[in-house]
Amino acid sequence: MGISRREFLMRVGQAGGYGAAFTLMQSLGLLPAPGANAQEALRPVEGKGARVVILGGGIAGLVSAYELNKAGYRCTVLEARERVGGRNWSIRRGTKIQFADGTQQVCNFEEGRYFNAGPARLPSIHTTMLGYCRELGVPLEVEVNTSRGTLLQCDRLNGGKPVEQRQMVNDTRGHVSELLAKCVRKGALDEDLSSEDKERMLAFLREYGDLSPDYTFKGSERSGFKVYPGAGLAAPEAKDPLPMHALLDANLWQGLLAEDVIDWQATMFQPVGGMDRIPAAFEKKLGSIIRYGADVRQIRQSPTDVTVTYLDQKTGKSDSITADYCICTMPFSVVKTIDTDFSSDVKALISETSYDSGYKVAWEARRFWEQEYNIYGGLSYLRHIVDVVWYPSAEFFSSKGIIVGGYSVENGTDFGRLPNIQAKLDASRTAIEKLHPGCSKELTNPVYINWGEIPFNLGSWVHGYGSDYANTYKRIILPDRRVYFAGDHTSHIVGWQEGAALSAHRTINQIGIAVQQGNSSKV
Amino acid sequence: MGISRREFLMRVGQAGGYGAAFTLMQSLGLLPAPGANAQEALRPVEGKGARVVILGGGIAGLVSAYELNKAGYRCTVLEARERVGGRNWSIRRGTKIQFADGTQQVCNFEEGRYFNAGPARLPSIHTTMLGYCRELGVPLEVEVNTSRGTLLQCDRLNGGKPVEQRQMVNDTRGHVSELLAKCVRKGALDEDLSSEDKERMLAFLREYGDLSPDYTFKGSERSGFKVYPGAGLAAPEAKDPLPMHALLDANLWQGLLAEDVIDWQATMFQPVGGMDRIPAAFEKKLGSIIRYGADVRQIRQSPTDVTVTYLDQKTGKSDSITADYCICTMPFSVVKTIDTDFSSDVKALISETSYDSGYKVAWEARRFWEQEYNIYGGLSYLRHIVDVVWYPSAEFFSSKGIIVGGYSVENGTDFGRLPNIQAKLDASRTAIEKLHPGCSKELTNPVYINWGEIPFNLGSWVHGYGSDYANTYKRIILPDRRVYFAGDHTSHIVGWQEGAALSAHRTINQIGIAVQQGNSSKV
Repeated sequence: MGISRREFLMRVGQAGGYGAAFTLMQSLGLLPAPGANAQEALRPVEGKGARVVILGGGIAGLVSAYELNKAGYRCTVLEARERVGGRNWSIRRGTKIQFADGTQQVCNFEEGRYFNAGPARLPSIHTTMLGYCRELGVPLEVEVNTSRGTLLQCDRLNGGKPVEQRQMVNDTRGHVSELLAKCVRKGALDEDLSSEDKERMLAFLREYGDLSPDYTFKGSERSGFKVYPGAGLAAPEAKDPLPMHALLDANLWQGLLAEDVIDWQATMFQPVGGMDRIPAAFEKKLGSIIRYGADVRQIRQSPTDVTVTYLDQKTGKSDSITADYCICTMPFSVVKTIDTDFSSDVKALISETSYDSGYKVAWEARRFWEQEYNIYGGLSYLRHIVDVVWYPSAEFFSSKGIIVGGYSVENGTDFGRLPNIQAKLDASRTAIEKLHPGCSKELTNPVYINWGEIPFNLGSWVHGYGSDYANTYKRIILPDRRVYFAGDHTSHIVGWQEGAALSAHRTINQIGIAVQQGNSSKV
Repeated sequence: MGISRREFLMRVGQAGGYGAAFTLMQSLGLLPAPGANAQEALRPVEGKGARVVILGGGIAGLVSAYELNKAGYRCTVLEARERVGGRNWSIRRGTKIQFADGTQQVCNFEEGRYFNAGPARLPSIHTTMLGYCRELGVPLEVEVNTSRGTLLQCDRLNGGKPVEQRQMVNDTRGHVSELLAKCVRKGALDEDLSSEDKERMLAFLREYGDLSPDYTFKGSERSGFKVYPGAGLAAPEAKDPLPMHALLDANLWQGLLAEDVIDWQATMFQPVGGMDRIPAAFEKKLGSIIRYGADVRQIRQSPTDVTVTYLDQKTGKSDSITADYCICTMPFSVVKTIDTDFSSDVKALISETSYDSGYKVAWEARRFWEQEYNIYGGLSYLRHIVDVVWYPSAEFFSSKGIIVGGYSVENGTDFGRLPNIQAKLDASRTAIEKLHPGCSKELTNPVYINWGEIPFNLGSWVHGYGSDYANTYKRIILPDRRVYFAGDHTSHIVGWQEGAALSAHRTINQIGIAVQQGNSSKV
């Protein structure tokens, strides 16, 4: 379907998840029958003390433990780190960021500010995650993902001066409407439209594009003002429209269309105080069920149970735990490094899975974007090695905030090829300077996250599942004997907490069936 | 320009203000030279004890008093009611709503909830009002004005079943893109587009409309899902597109385009706890400067001063105050009822000004829109006598909330012709039922506001300025001797607090010039 690799990355990673997968399945003719239910609702079967060992304390692991514990299972979560959450990680003053390559950073933000290094938004369609926030009492606030005051910048557009999103959106619609009205009036669509529909279409296009009575686009106050309306003598005057040619030249459509990517649509939320308020709320419920510092090294199954061996990072000694079932929520990037007795086909599928290295750069600064640009949340886009700047939705109108300058992937990108952290920070600073000339000198206390370099993640989200996505997906949502796979990588919502939570629900249902079949004493 | 009366109402009132005025001035050839500044910044001249009497404690009056007081003027605000704010009015448990026709309602909401009967949003481009919130420490939160989860309903569309905004927006764009791509490929725009631009245009349209490789629109996951993506076997499936013909039939474009009306664009805010937190913050600063219960009856000017006579509603006696200058912020609907010695041309202009009777209906209910529809803020539109439903942005995820069922004008509308309050409440309930079948029975504690019936307002915003808007505007932004006119009706931002605040700034600058010219002892 001609979807570029870049698009694939952006959609799977940042901007959605299932878009690319869906497209791929369609193109392969592998879609199941229309109307099939996406997923059965959670219906836990009474556990009656069945033992479940859960590998990984990210969202999939926490949801699994929380629900199974409620249903009478004896759960243990093995978490390699001293914190839960996995990629749900809010970085604050004093947080150490240790890369696999030995690089270390310590966050130096002022007390009270945070940076969501992993997930940072909860769309309202992600009802499972919103439901957990409600149930666990995690206070939410609006995450402004779209703001007409944000900017688009391209050296070839508007003399390199940033353009407000309101102008990009409405000038584009104005030109499209003018061109289509022209065709309708010429009769180019007479085969498609009845004469009544033609009239209605023209009336609609005048409204849609804010066209003049002669059906031309002469600019719109929707795009902003050259003379701002006040209470003085001068009447307001709309900005001159940007020519369609220049808009095509700039090719910044991603910035214009991002608001309608299904997972990015308003209304979106974020937990007050950091995304990690969600794992913190689960942690409070789970208590001693979680074993920290447990670095899983081996999985072995018998006809009656499963034994997981791990390195206890506090004692430096090996330990193990035996259970009736195991839920493996670790990313496949990590699973492929450990010793398992999975069947050879599952091992092959896991080893063929590749991961993206998502990155983010965050800075602490005076809120120049609010105070000088009237930008409150949302994202600006530009044509630069760092192509997105994301403004905070936390604590609007306060003195300083955390601004994200760059969020994409390292693998296969110019950004990823930059030689070192300093070069990456420089590229981030330059992007912010292009949007906000003179302001980049106020950027302080940078934090650079590259998920490919974070131990126990080794990637941000699945990049590809080998050559046969559909069959891989079908296989990995099924267990390998007593080991069930969960995590966003085993869902249609890759890269989102919702996918992780729903994968946990699926797994709980599957274990329920096994329990009902008396499967704790046979295979 | 063929702008309908309805459109005029909607734009001047609800949706903006200057759009219609601007259009009208353009069509009359009365626009000032392009590039002229809209308004000079506030630059108060030291008052040195000059006395200013300010008529009306709405936003224009409060801003005038606050700034002049800071600059060393001796100010008195005469406010007819026992509260400040004017149309900025948040209704809570126990609030009495007394109409001029004698009808009385008492708000019966549960403790802690409110309904903003007047202004209810602060767009981020209204920097003056946001500035006052910052300066006075009024905490703000996001007002969600656009949400892709809201609904559009028309009996002729989708069998009468409400359609999500995400589908309306994205299906419309899909069809428009398909039609334009067809024309481009047919060569209908060969005179307008170079062959290179044609290629780029087609590539753009594929992205813009989420078209198939053959440039047809077959539906988009941007519009939502028939099969929701989960972690089960079934792959996600986009909704079937609504036909363009049906969308034209429904003619619900207002609901689709409202998000790009310049004053309605994200990001928008609201004060936490009610819009009246703004007047309350001014009130705290002004203290005894405000005289409550002062019902202005007469204005008389001499060569050296101005005397305002008012009925003290507490004592029932007449009282008066003499000052060097007067700022009259009362709406012209009220000014025309009092005894003044304004020049005959000003009197005539004031008497020719007509006002709209904006209304709102609010209900208290369980948040069925959140819990069952995933709607968090924003507005739904329908083709009904009550054509808009507005969901609260306060206290998302809490148990109950205040939902507005109906916000438009009474004058000249079917709603206004309904015989009594009960019929209006019934119409509101029916609208909510059409959007949320089965839920309207949960609506309780209605409050119905009709600003035309509120004493000391007698209207919601200016409907028209007589036959010659441009010359009226030019005249009313100038003083009548010692009396200066302020209020949103003396700005290009009619119906918004920003216009009121900017009109106060203009007036303060004008009084500054008078003071500098030693105008307090001569005219």
